[in-house]
Amino acid sequence: MERLINRVANADLKIAQKLKLKKYRAELKLFVAEGLRLCEMVNPAQIEFGFFTAEFLKGERQIKLVEHLKNFAQMYEIPMATFEKISDTETPQGVMLIVRQKLSTLEELLTKKIIVALDAVRDAGNLGTILRTAEAFNCGVVVLEESVDIFNSKVVRASMGAIFNLSMVKLSRLEFLNTMNLAGIEILAAALDSSAEIYFNHKFTAKSALVFGNEAEGVSAEILSTAKKIYIPMSGRAESLNVAQAAAIIISEATRQKFFLDRN
Amino acid sequence: MERLINRVANADLKIAQKLKLKKYRAELKLFVAEGLRLCEMVNPAQIEFGFFTAEFLKGERQIKLVEHLKNFAQMYEIPMATFEKISDTETPQGVMLIVRQKLSTLEELLTKKIIVALDAVRDAGNLGTILRTAEAFNCGVVVLEESVDIFNSKVVRASMGAIFNLSMVKLSRLEFLNTMNLAGIEILAAALDSSAEIYFNHKFTAKSALVFGNEAEGVSAEILSTAKKIYIPMSGRAESLNVAQAAAIIISEATRQKFFLDRN
Repeated sequence: MERLINRVANADLKIAQKLKLKKYRAELKLFVAEGLRLCEMVNPAQIEFGFFTAEFLKGERQIKLVEHLKNFAQMYEIPMATFEKISDTETPQGVMLIVRQKLSTLEELLTKKIIVALDAVRDAGNLGTILRTAEAFNCGVVVLEESVDIFNSKVVRASMGAIFNLSMVKLSRLEFLNTMNLAGIEILAAALDSSAEIYFNHKFTAKSALVFGNEAEGVSAEILSTAKKIYIPMSGRAESLNVAQAAAIIISEATRQKFFLDRN
Repeated sequence: MERLINRVANADLKIAQKLKLKKYRAELKLFVAEGLRLCEMVNPAQIEFGFFTAEFLKGERQIKLVEHLKNFAQMYEIPMATFEKISDTETPQGVMLIVRQKLSTLEELLTKKIIVALDAVRDAGNLGTILRTAEAFNCGVVVLEESVDIFNSKVVRASMGAIFNLSMVKLSRLEFLNTMNLAGIEILAAALDSSAEIYFNHKFTAKSALVFGNEAEGVSAEILSTAKKIYIPMSGRAESLNVAQAAAIIISEATRQKFFLDRN
């Protein structure tokens, strides 16, 4: 019996190991959430299985979490040396969940007044930070092609768990443009182009899709050919803002106008 | 003669190596700028000496940079294996400058309409990102105690060179409060406190100091006891925004009101 359990545990350890690679995350439709804070935020219905170490159970909060998780999924206690092999962090806390990937439906996305679209955003920290901000402002998210994998563990960590709560879909650029046009949603692209409209002068309509582009290249030509361009005026010698900073500035202004401005 | 040059080069290599540590950066009042883009942005008058490799000189832009730098400072050509030892990046480009630290005077700082104060901001990426945004919006910067060293190479890289152009001073919290009060500058602290004023409802006066706090603890009690608190309303389940995101949102709104709003 014990040997059987060990065989299962070993197979599951191999899965955890494989999920470091995008290829296997896409194939198995799973991803990894690691650390106390992230694991507390996971929806238990999405958990496949998990691992913890004896060292992790050092406080009440930690013990409570593992006891709670055991009601929903197989939680393997493993040695720290084994945990370190499957962990993706330098100083592992000793708790990890294998979670089913969940994306939203288009219907759900279209209930949002602000949709944030990410067009080839490549840096995991930037993408995760934008997801966290999008969640804080109750935006839907569209991840377009060539962006970093949203289920990459660095993205999950930088999102601070926002990834578990977001309405999020993956679309091709063409699907995105068609969907927004059909739904009558204005498409606004953040551009480094001072002939574009200043972002706060734009009168945000009922629903908007805000597109943020690649760190070096900006928003793709395919999107720019259809979108209205807006820009953030800058007075320093800096050539540009970090893409996550630009996203925060424009998302917060769209929110201010849509939800707080007494315009009518 | 060649041996003499080598002795000098070796001493300078040791300095570059030492500058990885905060202790030596503080003692020598020097810091490191690495990579093509950053080295192009350094003010030549601040350069102490520099290093490059034969591999770096692969294009016109690279050759032009090194030729230009040779007019201002000793530029040592060193083998890539040596360069890798002093480099702080995983895949070094092969160009590095040793730069004198330069802070502004209080007088210079006080010419700015927006002053951004960083109160125990610990993450190098966050601090560098805020410096980049502060420069883009022409803000002055005050670095308060317990913040990460602004001359840390990760901060310099995340600032994308903004650190070379910013009006920036280091102050204790007490000096900061006294200086702002004497100059009649309102002090606003970003707080996670929904009883505070919503940031965009605040009427920003002629000059403001915006304080952003530690990633976990927020703004210190010492500052909060004197400052007016403002907050960013959030509708998601997220507990908070990343500090650099909060800074971008509040700095851009202060800029909109001060420079673009036709209020009078």
